[in-house]
Amino acid sequence: MLDIINSRRSVRKFKTDPVSEQDLTDILEAAMNAPSAGNEQAWQFVVLQGETLQKYLAINNNAPKGAPVGILVCQDLQAEKYAGFAVQDCAAATQNILLAVHAKGLGSVWTAVFPQNVADVRTLLALPEHITPFAFVPIGYPAATPANRSSRYAAARVHHNKW
Amino acid sequence: MLDIINSRRSVRKFKTDPVSEQDLTDILEAAMNAPSAGNEQAWQFVVLQGETLQKYLAINNNAPKGAPVGILVCQDLQAEKYAGFAVQDCAAATQNILLAVHAKGLGSVWTAVFPQNVADVRTLLALPEHITPFAFVPIGYPAATPANRSSRYAAARVHHNKW
Repeated sequence: MLDIINSRRSVRKFKTDPVSEQDLTDILEAAMNAPSAGNEQAWQFVVLQGETLQKYLAINNNAPKGAPVGILVCQDLQAEKYAGFAVQDCAAATQNILLAVHAKGLGSVWTAVFPQNVADVRTLLALPEHITPFAFVPIGYPAATPANRSSRYAAARVHHNKW
Repeated sequence: MLDIINSRRSVRKFKTDPVSEQDLTDILEAAMNAPSAGNEQAWQFVVLQGETLQKYLAINNNAPKGAPVGILVCQDLQAEKYAGFAVQDCAAATQNILLAVHAKGLGSVWTAVFPQNVADVRTLLALPEHITPFAFVPIGYPAATPANRSSRYAAARVHHNKW
């Protein structure tokens, strides 16, 4: 488990091989088993494939192209009980997605939905006003093994009882 | 790995047994191997023990008492390259902490640092202005095995190509 956490890398080049429905369901289950503020579960997920995926990528062009599928993680502001915490719920769910993807030998990268693109994404996917796109995670088999890097552990970022 | 993600539960009652330094280091390494926006790593960690831990818990009394140690995850606003994204970095790091803890047979719970308590926490720990406490995670051996619950997977939260 620690190895999965520590060996995860961002993957931005993908094979065209499809991702199975079972894998997608397992990944979404991992997402929804994240913790959330007061168990509010202020998240929703839109699976993007085919033509819609291509249209999404034309709007949010910070996300890499080439993956056969992607998950758009969205804040559900109607489910949010604690103002501002849907972001934290969605971030925890997104991190679970990345780890579940990596555990399956698939690859992904966490990409932001920039504020200036939210309106266009909302229109493309017919999202209601209480649903705010949060992050997009393309998923596919890696086209190459990402280079190893050393651990990011930095002792200077660890403090004991005071700064 | 999926089992670790799906079987994680919030633990709020702890044994007094100490957490080893090696376990703490491994947990902090997992935290720092989270992804972050443009690899900004806008996080810092304060390990709280002993008297300081008790003082912290008197301020932020939403966190359970009884754990021998805890990690305060903080936003580092000097390291933040993309405004607002330190929260996402810290949430991903916090989720890695919860998973690493669970993988080791330890227990934890993600607790919020409420805005009204930030100033007092800052004073207690001598945090500089650019360091904002984000979440506190008490860590210890669980005093009891949390009850099983069914998976939170909810098909109604999965949408395909449009809402």
